[in-house]
Amino acid sequence: MKKPILIINFKAYDNAFGKKGIDIAKKIEKISIEYSTEVTLSVPATMISTLSQEVSLPIYAQHIDDVDLGAHTGAITAEMIKEAGAKGSLLNHSEKRIRLDQIHNALTKMKKLGLESVVCIDRYELVNPIGLLQPDSILIEPPELIGSGISVSKAKPEVITKAVDEIKKTPSVYLIAGAGISNGDDVYTAIKLGSAGIGVASAVMKAKEPEKVVEEFIKGALRAIENG
Amino acid sequence: MKKPILIINFKAYDNAFGKKGIDIAKKIEKISIEYSTEVTLSVPATMISTLSQEVSLPIYAQHIDDVDLGAHTGAITAEMIKEAGAKGSLLNHSEKRIRLDQIHNALTKMKKLGLESVVCIDRYELVNPIGLLQPDSILIEPPELIGSGISVSKAKPEVITKAVDEIKKTPSVYLIAGAGISNGDDVYTAIKLGSAGIGVASAVMKAKEPEKVVEEFIKGALRAIENG
Amino acid sequence: MKKPILIINFKAYDNAFGKKGIDIAKKIEKISIEYSTEVTLSVPATMISTLSQEVSLPIYAQHIDDVDLGAHTGAITAEMIKEAGAKGSLLNHSEKRIRLDQIHNALTKMKKLGLESVVCIDRYELVNPIGLLQPDSILIEPPELIGSGISVSKAKPEVITKAVDEIKKTPSVYLIAGAGISNGDDVYTAIKLGSAGIGVASAVMKAKEPEKVVEEFIKGALRAIENG
Amino acid sequence: MKKPILIINFKAYDNAFGKKGIDIAKKIEKISIEYSTEVTLSVPATMISTLSQEVSLPIYAQHIDDVDLGAHTGAITAEMIKEAGAKGSLLNHSEKRIRLDQIHNALTKMKKLGLESVVCIDRYELVNPIGLLQPDSILIEPPELIGSGISVSKAKPEVITKAVDEIKKTPSVYLIAGAGISNGDDVYTAIKLGSAGIGVASAVMKAKEPEKVVEEFIKGALRAIENG
Repeated sequence: MKKPILIINFKAYDNAFGKKGIDIAKKIEKISIEYSTEVTLSVPATMISTLSQEVSLPIYAQHIDDVDLGAHTGAITAEMIKEAGAKGSLLNHSEKRIRLDQIHNALTKMKKLGLESVVCIDRYELVNPIGLLQPDSILIEPPELIGSGISVSKAKPEVITKAVDEIKKTPSVYLIAGAGISNGDDVYTAIKLGSAGIGVASAVMKAKEPEKVVEEFIKGALRAIENG
Repeated sequence: MKKPILIINFKAYDNAFGKKGIDIAKKIEKISIEYSTEVTLSVPATMISTLSQEVSLPIYAQHIDDVDLGAHTGAITAEMIKEAGAKGSLLNHSEKRIRLDQIHNALTKMKKLGLESVVCIDRYELVNPIGLLQPDSILIEPPELIGSGISVSKAKPEVITKAVDEIKKTPSVYLIAGAGISNGDDVYTAIKLGSAGIGVASAVMKAKEPEKVVEEFIKGALRAIENG
Repeated sequence: MKKPILIINFKAYDNAFGKKGIDIAKKIEKISIEYSTEVTLSVPATMISTLSQEVSLPIYAQHIDDVDLGAHTGAITAEMIKEAGAKGSLLNHSEKRIRLDQIHNALTKMKKLGLESVVCIDRYELVNPIGLLQPDSILIEPPELIGSGISVSKAKPEVITKAVDEIKKTPSVYLIAGAGISNGDDVYTAIKLGSAGIGVASAVMKAKEPEKVVEEFIKGALRAIENG
Repeated sequence: MKKPILIINFKAYDNAFGKKGIDIAKKIEKISIEYSTEVTLSVPATMISTLSQEVSLPIYAQHIDDVDLGAHTGAITAEMIKEAGAKGSLLNHSEKRIRLDQIHNALTKMKKLGLESVVCIDRYELVNPIGLLQPDSILIEPPELIGSGISVSKAKPEVITKAVDEIKKTPSVYLIAGAGISNGDDVYTAIKLGSAGIGVASAVMKAKEPEKVVEEFIKGALRAIENG
């Protein structure tokens, strides 16, 4: 997995699918290319195949069910999202938590299939326990800040710094910070505090001009990285 | 909703998605056209858009999450499956049960969006309670027979006849029978006992020549209907 | 089941268990005896045996798991609550929803064991579907009013009147109204609108003098019944 | 927590509650006293208060819900089981799995309340992740052997030895082995392989003479410890 500088979770917003979903994905792609900075889009299962064809950005699923192929009506398996064109998936998002054994099973299968994995958690104490399972990345998001517009960078920088300390125990795993990230400064701070990149959703998906927000985020990230 | 003579649930079988999924769908489509008998395919969420474009058969989702559009990572909503091309969805399959309030919410939204609905249940006592919520169809499947190869038509005909009695209390709702349906006679019997059509999965999905199985099922159905 | 005039759900409030739980139960018992009006207490599983011994009021569980006796670590079964002294149980409370097949299974077992059942629902459209399963009572509570102090009697009387219309289709089932019931007038109105009794929790459990609140509720109920 | 030599999970067996539950607990207590070897009983929530009074053995709950006191109908909280007399609880049993954040929340609260904790897992890869959360003990049980009569000691000794290696990374946490333990030799082997004690259920609960089985288990354990 490349350094995950910016992951955008489309969630189930009204512009996450259909023509609106394609439109926003293309706008983000344009900025991504302009700044030579990879942006990952985590999209609804119904949109994986379409967006994998429509844009060149890495497409992630938002969730994978821990079941093998077979009689599992309604399940979305790792095999299915790969076949549809996904490069990886979020796992254990606060809006779709799964159990530890399911996380381990899903990660094992994703590695076998060559899928990238970003496991979401809500507190620094879980960084090392999850890190031991060797996902590609861990995305830490204090749930009370998700969608709040109050960024973890400003409101709870200690969550990031403690998580950064913990992630050092499993050096191959990237740490991503998220929750409430709203502007370029939030991104700058998160990366300066030690996170590899950031995860966002509402700040982009609910923006009037999502591409401008993504541009600002990328600029903030690049500034922090150059500033190193 | 037209009379649901044959609903094939792709489940998460290894030929339910990707090229194999398209291949089996096309084979079924051919038979469907040949016999002028509509066959509905209930497919993984990742395949709805692809199969809606590749074949002319009605495509169903296998499940819908009872959430509105918004911050619901990993959810598959009614709006998403419609936008992807689905004509309807199964709900409450034994492998993906939901609660009664969720069934009611989902049905209300599906009606608003013009999506067809097939609510699965496992016993005749639930036919009238669910029928009162006015889905398009109810699919009754004794779970112990699902995937068994022992058909409800032969092993538990009373499940169908009792369900047929119950469905009469909500005349606008179709009754579909399923579980263990393996050959044309099973289909014939199920329809003769009063069901509008049948639901199948493993008998088709695990067959060496799925199109032959579908052909036999359609012949059984047509024989019963003509014989009606 | 006697007419369920007043059911008090102890929930998991800090005075729902231990000495405080016994204390509040005894205070309620005193009022119940004084007014010759039965009050049912729905209590945490850990308190069923203690309260069944300490007070003469009918003790209910708050939930039953739909499993048979056997290898089910952590389950609370109908057999266990009966053995501990419970006379019945709530089922499907908005804070502990279960599926329709589980409700049916639980009701079937409860009838066999002679346990009373109160199935909770959140909307009048589910009164008849649940009523067909023949619980002893249905408790209808618009969830947005639960614990709000704004009573269903005043804020949404049409929920009660519509539910009363629906319950007539299954005459052996009592209808109980709840959510936000705060004073004697709320109780009076709920019963005048046609409910057999009321369900409450926070109004009693969070009161400084719970026995006074219960007294006021009973007076409101008796006034409505005499007036009836 | 003392060394957890023998934990007996009553599960929801028909002799786990009521008079049978008291009877079996007393028989086990007798053996426990005779051999001066503490045996912990993990019992249904409805039985905690009764058994805490009837026997001198440490009584555990089988599960705790991760909720604070308040409006949580049907929840069993740490505070409730403590008040009822429990000395600790199992968490995350294979028949009642919870999420990682819930395990962490429950452990945090249990520590504050002075309750002992035994977190169940199904594979050695989770020993260190869970060990980092500092429960008192970890009980490892390959789920396919639970209730099988084929002991982990014999069928999968490598599960124990690998788990023993992993537990050394968090030295304050005890490792307990379980699943299929059927006789004194199984216990002897499990302890010789490095586990601090064993967890059992069906071997005791389904025995004609449970006290004899417990005696044999204790003898096996003592032999291993002396031999240690």
